[in-house]
Order: sequence, then structure tokens, then C-alpha cells
Amino acid sequence: MAYVSIQYEAMKKLSNHVFSKLGFTDDESKIITDVLLMSDMYGIESHGVQRMVRYYNSIKNGRIHMDSKWEIVHETPISAVIDNNHGTGQLVGHFAMNKAIEMAKKNGVGLISVRNSNHYGIAGYYAKLACDEGLIGISTTNSEAIMVPTNGRVAMLGSNPIAIAMPAKPYDFFFDASTTVVTRGKVEVYNKKGEPLPEGWTINAAGQAGSDAQDILKNIDEKNGGGILPLGGATEKLGGHKGYGYGMIAEILSSILSQGLTSNHTHIGALGGTCHSFIAINPNLFGDPEAIKAHFSTYLEELRQSPKAEGQTRIYTHGEKEVEAYALRLKEGFPVNENTIKEMKVICDEYGIDMESYLGKLDI
Amino acid sequence: MAYVSIQYEAMKKLSNHVFSKLGFTDDESKIITDVLLMSDMYGIESHGVQRMVRYYNSIKNGRIHMDSKWEIVHETPISAVIDNNHGTGQLVGHFAMNKAIEMAKKNGVGLISVRNSNHYGIAGYYAKLACDEGLIGISTTNSEAIMVPTNGRVAMLGSNPIAIAMPAKPYDFFFDASTTVVTRGKVEVYNKKGEPLPEGWTINAAGQAGSDAQDILKNIDEKNGGGILPLGGATEKLGGHKGYGYGMIAEILSSILSQGLTSNHTHIGALGGTCHSFIAINPNLFGDPEAIKAHFSTYLEELRQSPKAEGQTRIYTHGEKEVEAYALRLKEGFPVNENTIKEMKVICDEYGIDMESYLGKLDI
Repeated sequence: MAYVSIQYEAMKKLSNHVFSKLGFTDDESKIITDVLLMSDMYGIESHGVQRMVRYYNSIKNGRIHMDSKWEIVHETPISAVIDNNHGTGQLVGHFAMNKAIEMAKKNGVGLISVRNSNHYGIAGYYAKLACDEGLIGISTTNSEAIMVPTNGRVAMLGSNPIAIAMPAKPYDFFFDASTTVVTRGKVEVYNKKGEPLPEGWTINAAGQAGSDAQDILKNIDEKNGGGILPLGGATEKLGGHKGYGYGMIAEILSSILSQGLTSNHTHIGALGGTCHSFIAINPNLFGDPEAIKAHFSTYLEELRQSPKAEGQTRIYTHGEKEVEAYALRLKEGFPVNENTIKEMKVICDEYGIDMESYLGKLDI
Repeated sequence: MAYVSIQYEAMKKLSNHVFSKLGFTDDESKIITDVLLMSDMYGIESHGVQRMVRYYNSIKNGRIHMDSKWEIVHETPISAVIDNNHGTGQLVGHFAMNKAIEMAKKNGVGLISVRNSNHYGIAGYYAKLACDEGLIGISTTNSEAIMVPTNGRVAMLGSNPIAIAMPAKPYDFFFDASTTVVTRGKVEVYNKKGEPLPEGWTINAAGQAGSDAQDILKNIDEKNGGGILPLGGATEKLGGHKGYGYGMIAEILSSILSQGLTSNHTHIGALGGTCHSFIAINPNLFGDPEAIKAHFSTYLEELRQSPKAEGQTRIYTHGEKEVEAYALRLKEGFPVNENTIKEMKVICDEYGIDMESYLGKLDI
């Protein structure tokens, strides 16, 4: 897996061009590109521009309905349920979180649950939208079923990330993590490298410890059984029932409150059906937002300054690594897998886009 | 560690009597007893009547201020911050969740953060109060610092449980778990048994894997360093940074929004200072509560009915074990450690309570 280094601005322009050719307006293309590139710039390659080909495929095979419009099916001054009618995840996500932000600014809180959607990128993108407005932002999503519940052998929950972001100095708090031990993306990386999976990540179709990445991925896609373990592993000894519980929280906020499809019913044939949630909370519900932010920042600094384990030099607070990755990659470019570039080239060629005019001549 | 079986009604009456002698009103004693006994009846011995002696000690050593009154320091129609002025955790918890319930019934949601409190029992008790009213209930607390952040060697977060309960048939969903791999209570059990701790639970004062329960507990009490690992373990490989992140969520809701003491500053000398949160969400914010409940119940049943791993016969949904434990223990009594009985006897003797008249003659 060789990588090339790509400049942020160059990829942004190319991605905008590709998505506009796929049928999105300029504004829509910018939102989708923004979600994907934030992931790459934060160092989360699995949810970055390497997903472009998957969105392309989802449009071609009818999983993403390009001509559908979302619809607000239930609304109060502090909540809403939105049916995305199988439209694009990023677009309804951007709309829904901005609506939650508006509610939180006016009425203290905004709680929105979305059904019948598609993959929306990293959950943290939406949490950060609220954080950038001085609010606490939370977002969750379900996904294709990949998590096997404790004692089970068939995936019944998604990767089901929970993301939360909250203003702090000098770094905002930004936590975005799947409730599985690892995401499907990490299993894909081991598959590409042809290496056995670490113990405690997955189980095979028989419900036994699995180490064959290709087998695990095939089983997930074909719904043969097996999948990725909840955070905490296969048994209660290290708390697997807790990861399963956090996965349930994401499921409740996303697919239960919206009365949408639970993970085990999504991604069957051409059906997507992913569900999300978007929550914004105004800290002024609890006092002076600046005082709360200062109090939080003090604690985060105490965490970073606390004594390190043997062999460790830093304790990170959540969001710190992402801020550093972003700064570095803005300066030096970010790594893109050569296969991703090749996949993009095929799409560019189909639409008559001169990829080289954006990314320069790449030695692939 | 020998156990005796005690009848629920008998212990309830005895506990009410003891707490009234400790200076609580009858109503207050009933609330405290109710919190402790729900824990025993749910099979969570660590937070049950075995804690009576700890509350007794906290009153005697001045950690619990018996004559203080809580005070609402900030309030909106959907939120509040309460300063418990170092009063009893269960009492402010009961008050705060009922206030959140009232807000959620009237205005859709109630978000309450409490500071300067004391140990409040199991977080799930408060989540269940809301669930019993048809709402989604959430409660979190911080605690004495026991969780070591990823890469650290000093405990900086508490056990920091997150509890959530939501109406469903035939069992309500009830999830209550510390964000550490295990609670301090489990380490205490290994200490009493004199057995080495399982790998992946704790680290010692040098920040290395620990297995000596007595050493770990001593280090926590004396703040020597070391402690219990976050869910996911010591490194990022199995997701330790995720458990640390969930711990942070509990800290944000409890000690940050209330501007109270973060876990690393609580429990120093006679100071308690625990912080909690209580959230009630009305499902009618998202549509017909009965339809949402039915949708949720279908998913929970699908989970329970899904194929089992080799050697497993049941998949549990969260709350199922607790309901079964409660029914069984109501019929057959619940187990109480003989040491707990002996500790209670000392307190009973001090206040002239005839323990035998409540529990019968016990063969200890």
C-alpha cells in the first residue's frame, strides 16, 4: 500500500468538481467534500476521500436517491424527526445539525433524529459544527450491521459511533469513536496488508475468535455471521457488554427515536436506510458559558500534565491529536493511498475531468 | 466470604430504622434504603446494603453534612444546576431526577447537573425513575479518582458510570455501567478472596500492569498512582482511549457543567464533592411514545432471538438480568456477606436497634 502526498486545497477543488459531476449542486458538493476532507486531515483515512468511490457506487446502484428530498415528519421547538427518503447522508446531516444548533441557540437544546439516510462520513464532523458555535455537539449514527452482541454470533448493531465536541482552550474537546473495538476500516487495512487480525477484534461465522480479515469482511458483506466485537471484547470479563451498551445508545438515538431501520435491517440489497442523531446543547442552560469553558480547560490541562506511564511522554485529551494532524497536513499535504487515486482516476475519466490539472503529475 | 440469605422486606425495615437513627427523616430513610436495596436486588452487591457502613462513616467523619440543604444555583424551564452543599447523594439525586422528570413532562426535556454532593448509589436507580414515568432517563456521576487516562499512571477520572433506561416490553432497557473496565467493587472482591487480578484491569503505581488487588486499592486510597484502566484497557489497540472518552462524557455532564469538582479533586481528606447529572427526555419529542416503544421492543426481541455463539444459550438485552434477579431475590431472599451483617450489627448496637428482631437469628 503505497501512498502519495496530496495538498488539501488541490483535493478540495477536485472533489468539488467530481461531486458536482455526480449531480450535486456546488453548495452540496462543498458540504460532502468538507466532511470527507476533515476526516483525512484529522488522520482518519477510512472515512476520507477514499470513500468517494463508495459514494459513486451508491449513486450508481441506487442506494443513494439523488432526486429525493428530506422531509420533517415531526417537530417541536427543541426537537425533530427527519425522513431523508434515502438521500445523501452528509447533506441531511449538515441540515439537521444546523437546525439543532438554531434550536439550541434559541431554546437551549436541539434533539434531532434522522431515518432512511445513507452513510454520512465521520460523526465528529457534525458534533464539531455545534462546538464551533460555542455549543456542546453530539452526533451518532447506526450503520450496516458489523457488531456482534455479547454471546451472539451474528452482527446486529452497526459500528455505531458516538461523537461529542465541546469548546475548550487551547483545544476543543473532540471525541469520535465507534462503539466496536475497531471500525471496519481497520479490518480492511489488515486485509490489504494480508496480516492476521489482533486478538480480541473479531469473531468468525461460528462465533469463535477470528483473525482472518478477508473472511470477516466477506461474512459481514454476505451476512454469514461473525463480525467485529463490541468495545470490551467477546465476554463480560473485560466489559464487552458495556461496548454493546454504548452501541445501543447510538441505536436508540438514531434508529429507535426516528422509528427508522435498526442496523440489522439496513444495507440489504439496494437498501441503505442508515439513521443518525444530532444534538446541540447550549452551555448557558447551566451558567456562564465562558466560566464553564474555563473550568473544563483547567481539567483538560490537568489531564495532559498528569504523570505519564513508563515509556510514555504524553497524555492526550480527545481532539488534541486531530488538531495537530490538521496543522501538519495543511502544511505538508495528507497521504492518499495509490489505489484511492486510481479509483478516482476512473471516475474522473468517465466525467472528462483532468485529474492531473488538480493534483499534478503523480508518480504512481 | 460466607453469605447469608436475607428477605427484602426485612432488610428494608431494618435499613429504614438504621438511617432514621443516623438522623434522617422517615421519608429520607426510605429513599436511601430504596437506592441501596435496588442494587442488591439487581445483583450489584457492591452498591447495596454493604455500603451502609460507608455512609455511617461518612456521616461520622463529616464528609456527609447532615444539616446542609441543597440549593438551586441556576435554573431554566429545561435545566438546573444544584449545589448539594455536601449533603447526601441519594436525597439530592431523588430530588433532581424528579425535577428533571417534571421538566420533561412539561417541556420535553430536563437536564440537571449537581455539584458538591456525595456517593449516590447506583446511577441506574435515577435513570429508572424517569423510565418508570415513560421517559428516557439518563444519569451519570463522577467519583473518587480511580481511572487512569490512556498513557497515564495517576488516576484522574472516577469510575464515572453512565446509566440509561428506556421503556420497552417485556423488559425496560436498563444499562448502567462504569466507564472503567471494572468497578472498584470488583477489585475489592478479589482482594477479599486474595486472588490475583485478571490481566487488563489495573495498573500499579509505576504505570505497569498490576495484579495485586491490595496494592491497587491502597494506591487509590493514598493517591500513590496507578488505578483501574478505562474500558478498552491500557492502550489504544483495544480501544482504551474510548473508555477514557466515555469517562470524560460522564465528567462533562456531572462536574464540568455544574462547575463542581472534577474526580481528581474529590475525596481529599474529609472533602467529598462528588458531582452527578440527571437527564429526562420525553419520547413525545419524536412522535408517538407507544409506537417508539413498540419499535424498540421489536429490536430488543430480535437481539435476544439472534443466533448464539458456540457454547452460549442466551443473548441478554440490558436490564433483562436485573429483572430476573429481582424476581428471584424477592422470592428467595438476597445474599448478604457475613462481614456486612457484622458491620451492621455494630451500628445497630450503637443505636439500640435489635437486629435479630428484623432479620431473625442468623447463623454467623
